[in-house]
Amino acid sequence: MMDLIIVGGGPAGMAAAIYAARAKQKLLLITSEFGGQMARKEVEIDNYPGLEKISALDLIARFRRHLTSLQVEVKMAEVFGLKKENDVFEVVAGVEKLAARAVVIATGASPRPAGIPGEKDFLGRGVCYCATCDGPLFARREVAVIGGGNAAFEAAQFLANFAKKVYVLERGSQVAADGANRELLKKTGKAEIIANARILRIEGKNFVQKLVYRDGNNPDNKEIELPVEGVFVKAGNQPASDFLGGLVDLNDRNEIKFNPVDNQTKTSGLFVAGDVSEIKFKQIVVAAGEGAKAAMAAGDYLRNLKL
Amino acid sequence: MMDLIIVGGGPAGMAAAIYAARAKQKLLLITSEFGGQMARKEVEIDNYPGLEKISALDLIARFRRHLTSLQVEVKMAEVFGLKKENDVFEVVAGVEKLAARAVVIATGASPRPAGIPGEKDFLGRGVCYCATCDGPLFARREVAVIGGGNAAFEAAQFLANFAKKVYVLERGSQVAADGANRELLKKTGKAEIIANARILRIEGKNFVQKLVYRDGNNPDNKEIELPVEGVFVKAGNQPASDFLGGLVDLNDRNEIKFNPVDNQTKTSGLFVAGDVSEIKFKQIVVAAGEGAKAAMAAGDYLRNLKL
Repeated sequence: MMDLIIVGGGPAGMAAAIYAARAKQKLLLITSEFGGQMARKEVEIDNYPGLEKISALDLIARFRRHLTSLQVEVKMAEVFGLKKENDVFEVVAGVEKLAARAVVIATGASPRPAGIPGEKDFLGRGVCYCATCDGPLFARREVAVIGGGNAAFEAAQFLANFAKKVYVLERGSQVAADGANRELLKKTGKAEIIANARILRIEGKNFVQKLVYRDGNNPDNKEIELPVEGVFVKAGNQPASDFLGGLVDLNDRNEIKFNPVDNQTKTSGLFVAGDVSEIKFKQIVVAAGEGAKAAMAAGDYLRNLKL
Repeated sequence: MMDLIIVGGGPAGMAAAIYAARAKQKLLLITSEFGGQMARKEVEIDNYPGLEKISALDLIARFRRHLTSLQVEVKMAEVFGLKKENDVFEVVAGVEKLAARAVVIATGASPRPAGIPGEKDFLGRGVCYCATCDGPLFARREVAVIGGGNAAFEAAQFLANFAKKVYVLERGSQVAADGANRELLKKTGKAEIIANARILRIEGKNFVQKLVYRDGNNPDNKEIELPVEGVFVKAGNQPASDFLGGLVDLNDRNEIKFNPVDNQTKTSGLFVAGDVSEIKFKQIVVAAGEGAKAAMAAGDYLRNLKL
């Protein structure tokens, strides 16, 4: 029987493991990969405080070295299910069932791909999913944002701080972003909204060079090319929250609801940290801080169980 | 007029500056020192994820280098007051008054010293204020905790994971910790509670070697020496929140109340991050994550001001 099982190997899960290991909890970290969304980036990360301009792979390696130095036990497996009975959690990991008195869920989220030809090929070479993270790389360049919701418009506003020009392409005939966001983007003086865009493909050599689309109102017209070097896809997130059954409440984006004071979900002893939660800001250092909080709160819970 | 003034140069303030600088906000960081509570530690820090076993001074240097790489403007000054009029904040820094549309307070807290002779001399050489941070250094040693409240008992429980023996010394005739904490500490089998302790001094050569006290019930009896190598002082915290006037609400520990979702205080445009807030867990990576959150929330606020 473990004290604590942490599910997920991104910054939240690894930070939780560092804190739990130092607190001498009997601990197991279960993950099918290390780094979470960091592992999907080939670019530099410049916003993890204390490690400026570090490659994503180096940052993951540093977190992993930290786990190793604290002798954290790791099981490489996919987690398929979770149950709780009589104050004991049962975690279904691969073909095994593992028991623990407390669990931290830190399974993260994936950006939802737009499914555009070329999107995968140019990932990290012009195709991005996070404007806060990668926007500053596109100073004085032209970029496109795919999507018409608030997240797309906020990304476009942020990008307008750096880019020469920001195109926002929306499949439908009108954008879903609210009036405030539309107004704010307009004020940047750098944005062009293109509705009814039938996006055909992303093209380039080593890096993105253009985005090709057709006007959905005039589908017989010829293809239109936008000379962009960056394509930011804002088609939503997929939190990895679907294996938790009724033990957690989800919001309308499938993110786990929790108490931000102590990272407790609706199930006593079940904690959550990072992008799989409804935390507003999805950033590496925020996830790491949340992981530390969740592990400390789990420590408090475990102490009280012993009474 | 600045977009954002960040007050405080600890991990929360520096992380906030990193995020605000990358978001191209017109930004000023005001602080009288760098590192916050990190600057008061000479020991290694082993719980900032990604940088295992780093000296406090090296970690501060790394954060500062990160600020420099982003060309963050810094003003070295003490902040004495804050006012808000017509959506503009006025920050009194040294002899100057500076204006900004939004402010992040990240002034941190200091552990309250117990005022024991030797306490200052052995700071970082056996005298500690944070069990979570430094407890693991005292594996198989004897340690003392000064204080009888819940924080002291929780520190003692944590220390019992590592130490051979944990003495808890309380000045009064009974401890203030609640029954659960007393029971949990008893269960470790490693603790000895000493009430009515008149603590006289901490002694040692390069490092702490003993704690000397007298029994307050029998003050004429001779001095008693405890052969401890670590002394953890848990006499409370002093959050640096007293210059904020009525712009914030404080809890009974003088910590700033805030909305944990977006770090907003009761005053619109005034955000808080780290140990000066009522956040439950006072840790470097938690403060850094909170600083990032506060800066991003301030960014949202500033965008909306422009409407």
